[in-house]
Amino acid sequence: MNLKEKIVLFKNITIITMNENRDVIEDGIVAFKNNEIIHVGKRDIEQTLISEYGCEIEIIDGEEGILMPGMINCHTHASMVPFRSLADDCKDRLKRYLFPLEQKLVDEKLTYIGAKYAIAEMLLGGVTTFCDMYYFEDEVAKASKELNMRSVLCETVLNFPSPDSKKAYGGLEYSIAFIEKWKNDDLITPGIGPHAPYTNSDEALKEAYEISKKYNVPITMHVAEMDYELSECKEKYNLTAVQYLDKLGILDSNFISAHTVLVDEKDIEILKEKNVGVVHNIGANSKGAKGVMPIVKMREKGINIGLGTDGPMSGNTLDIITQMPQVGKIHKLFNNDRTLLPSIELIEMATIGGAKVLGMDKEVGSIEVGKKADLTLIETYSVNMQPIYDYYAAIVYSANPSNVDTVVVNGKIVVKNKKLISGDFREIRKSIINLKDKIDKVAINL
Amino acid sequence: MNLKEKIVLFKNITIITMNENRDVIEDGIVAFKNNEIIHVGKRDIEQTLISEYGCEIEIIDGEEGILMPGMINCHTHASMVPFRSLADDCKDRLKRYLFPLEQKLVDEKLTYIGAKYAIAEMLLGGVTTFCDMYYFEDEVAKASKELNMRSVLCETVLNFPSPDSKKAYGGLEYSIAFIEKWKNDDLITPGIGPHAPYTNSDEALKEAYEISKKYNVPITMHVAEMDYELSECKEKYNLTAVQYLDKLGILDSNFISAHTVLVDEKDIEILKEKNVGVVHNIGANSKGAKGVMPIVKMREKGINIGLGTDGPMSGNTLDIITQMPQVGKIHKLFNNDRTLLPSIELIEMATIGGAKVLGMDKEVGSIEVGKKADLTLIETYSVNMQPIYDYYAAIVYSANPSNVDTVVVNGKIVVKNKKLISGDFREIRKSIINLKDKIDKVAINL
Repeated sequence: MNLKEKIVLFKNITIITMNENRDVIEDGIVAFKNNEIIHVGKRDIEQTLISEYGCEIEIIDGEEGILMPGMINCHTHASMVPFRSLADDCKDRLKRYLFPLEQKLVDEKLTYIGAKYAIAEMLLGGVTTFCDMYYFEDEVAKASKELNMRSVLCETVLNFPSPDSKKAYGGLEYSIAFIEKWKNDDLITPGIGPHAPYTNSDEALKEAYEISKKYNVPITMHVAEMDYELSECKEKYNLTAVQYLDKLGILDSNFISAHTVLVDEKDIEILKEKNVGVVHNIGANSKGAKGVMPIVKMREKGINIGLGTDGPMSGNTLDIITQMPQVGKIHKLFNNDRTLLPSIELIEMATIGGAKVLGMDKEVGSIEVGKKADLTLIETYSVNMQPIYDYYAAIVYSANPSNVDTVVVNGKIVVKNKKLISGDFREIRKSIINLKDKIDKVAINL
Repeated sequence: MNLKEKIVLFKNITIITMNENRDVIEDGIVAFKNNEIIHVGKRDIEQTLISEYGCEIEIIDGEEGILMPGMINCHTHASMVPFRSLADDCKDRLKRYLFPLEQKLVDEKLTYIGAKYAIAEMLLGGVTTFCDMYYFEDEVAKASKELNMRSVLCETVLNFPSPDSKKAYGGLEYSIAFIEKWKNDDLITPGIGPHAPYTNSDEALKEAYEISKKYNVPITMHVAEMDYELSECKEKYNLTAVQYLDKLGILDSNFISAHTVLVDEKDIEILKEKNVGVVHNIGANSKGAKGVMPIVKMREKGINIGLGTDGPMSGNTLDIITQMPQVGKIHKLFNNDRTLLPSIELIEMATIGGAKVLGMDKEVGSIEVGKKADLTLIETYSVNMQPIYDYYAAIVYSANPSNVDTVVVNGKIVVKNKKLISGDFREIRKSIINLKDKIDKVAINL
């Protein structure tokens, strides 16, 4: 028997397809073969499939759970998880803690251990694809492959030396080698990540863009996030951050614009015109008191919006389930309108919207025949999950990451019965705790 | 052996005491006998206790978890949980769905089943005391006693007939009998709940106040929540809602003011002067786009603030853990200051602050010798709970209700290993699902 030819079938589920019709199928079944979805429908195809494939079907009873497309975390710095909960609420945290800690501690090992822990957390929380920007991205790729996570990995480019480069802009060189190494991988999409407008020269930004264009890979950047970034752009060019990047000619559909908080009407026009995808990081932006990305206006213009957690030192958690209610509530509040952003639109941003932002919507983001099998099963037996009158609302306003029961990435079951099965969580946890002890000793002197 | 004399001892825990010094005790132990805490300290008393009490000690290994005071939900309508996720995001939800549904469906049975489910959810989420306002409060009391939950239960008073009264203001009469029945109970504190200024006459409000005063029990009300409430008060009396209630002479330390969003400087002065406790329901207020209670100013004045979820049709979840990060983030954002409301202050509102609001801070809200054993153990083995540099931050920004491992109310273990043990959760769940089918048939015609 060729195990690769086995069919896996979910039954006894409600399917939130997020296909173009936004079909919701009660008592449905979803089947996949290798890494591809081959059937999505009502229960009645079950017998046909079973008779066709015989004993080579693995059946997963969803126990009346909700099967949704795997969620997409469009912006994070996964490897920062070893620093989580350190100096929250502190005024000069970035300069007082974060930069010195990174300077002293970030190496290949920390990056690998952090990425592995963060990926485990994302998988357990129903995330099946993430977009990362950090150092030593090759280590993140290794961790991602080991745990069978789909990822878009972008090496940081900066105008000063970084943990993995003794010289400024070392990330450019790193990126070329990194992209060459991973460009044909089935799980890893390599990209490039110039940190921000205020930490890069015009030349470096253009060079990064040329690399992205040459290889046709994503380019991601923190854009219009900081007050001082905007003032600097205004002062130097009399432009907003978005207008400055546009003038440089580096905005296109490969561009993933994280944060994008401090934007005006003209910026929104540019983002739409250049088909830039934007990433809303509401949890981190609110905790850091950075402001609110105008997603209502952006949606009106038809801009693609995905959700991100930002790094776990900024946003603490790495799942997307807990981002959705924050997005809904904060925008309802700011716009004084309870009907804005109904749950279905939040689920869109968490799935197919995120896939569009990352340029992967042909492959992932919805449950449709021919797409990759990236699936998240939300159980409905826990106390917080009943009753359900609206499946979207139940996920957005009732669920939390602990309700994620089973997760499939690229046709492989990676989480089952709420346990990580693509890696040894005990070992992963042990590594992070050892690292914490080491970090503690450094942090105490800061 | 007299089982009542047994000592229960938590070990291998970090204790967040929330005592006046806000002591945090690593590797601590907490012991309680009957319903009272008898020891709080470092590990070293363990042997003394064991030799003193011999085999009559039940030892609970906290597995390096965090033991905190049981959390307090200061405002909810527990029995509304059967309607959760119905018509979220809908414009006229209150009038189009909620009132007709309540009119047609709320009876003793629904109130009891709803309360039982909601209480199970609160206990599983680490809440050990809640303050309720609804109809048939005697049914809520029954459910609360059965599951061993501590509660402050306030029958609604309204100027129109309600599910449990054919005439207006029937809640006044109901309350007297209800208070008489429960006034000496060890778990139930009966009170009275005039619904809002705009649904009560001056006379009814004064009468409710007299009842509260006569029996020295809590009186709770929705205050300054609605735009139209404020306009009505302005138009009729040229006063804000708070000023109107103050003029009636009904504000005192028994008064629990829920929502309290639309208030000015003078209102805040009055609330402080009259020692009124206020309840912040950020989740429900943001989802309903109702505005943000000015807690930063209120805290500066020294007003007691507790947290509430509001009813589960408004706020969906019933735990307090998920309220804390919402409070922190939204106020940081609105005040443009990331240092505001550090985690310790959010935990205060969730515990001892809430106890003060309910007038129960002599009994609950902190882990101290002589106080009632109302305890919540947060496990730290799950992926979202590591690393921990700051116990407060880890609870506020990392935890979710699924991390609640063990819960003790009034010296009785009600949740253990994340399972409800004071009731049969399967049965409770079955009842709510049956009820949902019935509600569906009514809702479809609205």
